[in-house]
Amino acid sequence: MADINYDELFEVLAEFYEHMMPFNKLIGIKMETLTLETAVVKIAMKDELVGNSHKHILHGGVIAAALDFTGGVIAQLSVIKKMKHATPEELTKRLTRMGTIDMRVDYIRPGKGEYFTVTGELLRLGNKVAVVRSVFHNDDESLIAAGTGTYLVG
Amino acid sequence: MADINYDELFEVLAEFYEHMMPFNKLIGIKMETLTLETAVVKIAMKDELVGNSHKHILHGGVIAAALDFTGGVIAQLSVIKKMKHATPEELTKRLTRMGTIDMRVDYIRPGKGEYFTVTGELLRLGNKVAVVRSVFHNDDESLIAAGTGTYLVG
Amino acid sequence: MADINYDELFEVLAEFYEHMMPFNKLIGIKMETLTLETAVVKIAMKDELVGNSHKHILHGGVIAAALDFTGGVIAQLSVIKKMKHATPEELTKRLTRMGTIDMRVDYIRPGKGEYFTVTGELLRLGNKVAVVRSVFHNDDESLIAAGTGTYLVG
Amino acid sequence: MADINYDELFEVLAEFYEHMMPFNKLIGIKMETLTLETAVVKIAMKDELVGNSHKHILHGGVIAAALDFTGGVIAQLSVIKKMKHATPEELTKRLTRMGTIDMRVDYIRPGKGEYFTVTGELLRLGNKVAVVRSVFHNDDESLIAAGTGTYLVG
Repeated sequence: MADINYDELFEVLAEFYEHMMPFNKLIGIKMETLTLETAVVKIAMKDELVGNSHKHILHGGVIAAALDFTGGVIAQLSVIKKMKHATPEELTKRLTRMGTIDMRVDYIRPGKGEYFTVTGELLRLGNKVAVVRSVFHNDDESLIAAGTGTYLVG
Repeated sequence: MADINYDELFEVLAEFYEHMMPFNKLIGIKMETLTLETAVVKIAMKDELVGNSHKHILHGGVIAAALDFTGGVIAQLSVIKKMKHATPEELTKRLTRMGTIDMRVDYIRPGKGEYFTVTGELLRLGNKVAVVRSVFHNDDESLIAAGTGTYLVG
Repeated sequence: MADINYDELFEVLAEFYEHMMPFNKLIGIKMETLTLETAVVKIAMKDELVGNSHKHILHGGVIAAALDFTGGVIAQLSVIKKMKHATPEELTKRLTRMGTIDMRVDYIRPGKGEYFTVTGELLRLGNKVAVVRSVFHNDDESLIAAGTGTYLVG
Repeated sequence: MADINYDELFEVLAEFYEHMMPFNKLIGIKMETLTLETAVVKIAMKDELVGNSHKHILHGGVIAAALDFTGGVIAQLSVIKKMKHATPEELTKRLTRMGTIDMRVDYIRPGKGEYFTVTGELLRLGNKVAVVRSVFHNDDESLIAAGTGTYLVG
């Protein structure tokens, strides 16, 4: 059986993440990078994402959502990497069953900036759970927030 | 000096939370109850808040945002209670400086329902930080998620 | 096949927890209650468990260890309950594979007291993970600390 | 007034951490490095620290205690750095009031090894709280666990 066509897969996945997940669309999640090795998410500041209108800083909920989502994508990449001989159906089934079990977010600095990037690194990948640490930076490359999430795998 | 008029204060605060915090407005945060004793937040399901369109369940980011916000309101109530002889200016100054330091969210069940309610209880109130445990239920009164947040106080 | 003899099982388990887990023995973990429904752990204050000798309060590490352990026992009880038709071998195999994935601890009050009790409640039980919230009280019934742990199941 | 003699201060502090904190002594906390820039803690495996005697791995409670303690030391270093013109009395008073508010621990791999090292990095330092991420490695330099703690400062 032919192995997975990753270029195609990541194109489909990016499309799904940006357009088929309504809340991602609402807050403007964009996949800046999506490869077998890494995922980088980008979010542009916009008025509706502001927490406190006096200070024009991002609402903590947007930050938490982006950290959770990015961690989840990185957990999915690690599963995709592992299942390199799976059929598209097996892979889809597996990815669909994944979900966040718990997450910690640390808010480090106020969310000021025109755009923000979120990425992360896999800490643990087992048969049942993955643990990912994710980081949220602004366009000055200041660390705005960091998170650690535990994700159900398969 | 006259003490605080709480009815008036809570009316102003509810107005602020619902209309002056743009991201709260975007996700549809409503203050169902807001008294010196407790806060209950209500959110109605709507298409834009969905995480996975196949399953029509709430995105984890909405849940995290609502738990964080509700915990913050309960931390603010505890500060308001303590500062009962403060002037409106002192109180406003204090409330404005508050913010989330960190939060854990546990996702217990899929976020299915027509509406959701969020409330919480104060675990710790010191001069510097408050810790609040908050819970997110659906319209069946099933526990969807629980959170614990540490908030900067004053 | 005969069903599990729970009285015998819990006697064996209590013995194991108290005497075969060396670190539990070191800090003085005692099983005050261990039934299919609940677990209550008791720890007596002793000089070696003190964090700060000026203040004679329990070290945070003892509290974290006790919350983690108690949560794990409650996760195990929920598995035992579910596997009521399993053989002792199947059950032992399953319990042996369990372990803590992550935990949050909130330190609420200084750990003062002559003895402490720890118990908890199951928040989630799936095929892969259990989530347990646990609470640590002193002999005045003051809440000293609370924790939430995610445990690998099976 | 003369500035702080750091060599002397760190000698006194290391002595205090190792010998005046009874639980640290019980689990065998050693300060491998303690300078204005960093802290590295070392723990040797010993039978009493084992969680499960069949597997001879470190009990999660020892790991949590070590991550919490090391994070606290790094928070203290950051306060010492900031208070460089303080008198010893002011500094002592400040350090004594510090304490852990909350902590998350992620257990990544079983705690196997002859000795373990723990270090960390400051994520946030404000007037009221510090946030530190700490990491726990074995003698193979495998990451055994990671933690994030929020500490009361001042």
